[in-house]
Amino acid sequence: MARTSGSHSEITGPRILDAALRLFAQQGYAAVSMRKIASEVGLQVGALYNYTPDKQSLLFGLMREHMENLVAAWREEAQGGTPNARLEKFARFHIRYHNVRRDAVFIAYMELRNLTPENFEIIEELRRQYEGELIAILAEGVRQGDFQVADPKITAMAIIAMLTGVNTWFRETGRLSLKDVEDIYWDMTRRAAGAS
Amino acid sequence: MARTSGSHSEITGPRILDAALRLFAQQGYAAVSMRKIASEVGLQVGALYNYTPDKQSLLFGLMREHMENLVAAWREEAQGGTPNARLEKFARFHIRYHNVRRDAVFIAYMELRNLTPENFEIIEELRRQYEGELIAILAEGVRQGDFQVADPKITAMAIIAMLTGVNTWFRETGRLSLKDVEDIYWDMTRRAAGAS
Repeated sequence: MARTSGSHSEITGPRILDAALRLFAQQGYAAVSMRKIASEVGLQVGALYNYTPDKQSLLFGLMREHMENLVAAWREEAQGGTPNARLEKFARFHIRYHNVRRDAVFIAYMELRNLTPENFEIIEELRRQYEGELIAILAEGVRQGDFQVADPKITAMAIIAMLTGVNTWFRETGRLSLKDVEDIYWDMTRRAAGAS
Repeated sequence: MARTSGSHSEITGPRILDAALRLFAQQGYAAVSMRKIASEVGLQVGALYNYTPDKQSLLFGLMREHMENLVAAWREEAQGGTPNARLEKFARFHIRYHNVRRDAVFIAYMELRNLTPENFEIIEELRRQYEGELIAILAEGVRQGDFQVADPKITAMAIIAMLTGVNTWFRETGRLSLKDVEDIYWDMTRRAAGAS
């Protein structure tokens, strides 16, 4: 692949991240070398080190960006309302947001094993923030008598796993639209929360 | 590591599979060489090829064995009863069975990308068999008026994702026993099926 001389960092940086994301998702973090990432974007491996100190930083950067953007996007979406309305918004948001970010979702779960302990703890904290948003909705719904949930934390984990699972089977070309899928999963989410 | 000369194939075969499972789960299929697997069990790499033709066969063998055993174990457990009783049995079985096979479960989802198309199709067929067991329970419950489910297939996928998710967070040392977790997840499964 030709070396792209004179490319600007504001273009090259995102291209490196895109390439790393795609390669990590396809082949796994451990199987992808810095040389392979450099080659994918048409850089000498030495030039790649101008953008990132090492492969761990690339992986951690991708995972942190994914989790931070997820939390920020949800907080922008969440605008008050009843616990039931917020729960519905969460279920639909989670499915839509993750459906168009399959590589990032795959990596965010699968490559946790390859993070350093310090980086792992930062990603886990971001994940807890996101889970905490759903736990808060469930707990508020219980407080107001709208939901029947024995353990909001466990129910939140279960709902998130259920919703994320859409990524493993949903295809745009299938018999259901994403809107159909959202409707069905919202109904199951509502039931899991014991919504009245 | 010392070479274990004179080991018998009935001992060495399972040791190779155990080592391959552990290494694939820890490092990812693409990062694990046949040499590394051989070294892990104290064999020369040439001797490893007496047991398995290649790394793909090891991966496929592990995944097929996991899925075949899962389907067989469930069919042994399932012994008639009402749809509600069978659904409860399925939820508890799924959690217990997967909880003690974390490496195999991790690989069964994560390394699908590394199967040849022919092998992928065989694993997918086994997965469909297992999902089919739950779909049949849900459909029978709907037919008998016990469950309210708009789409048994989608509900089955959602329930399986929810139950499998226990593996990502449950630890024996946590505040809940596996029995507590089973109870909570059975309750959510029952609700998701709209059980009366």
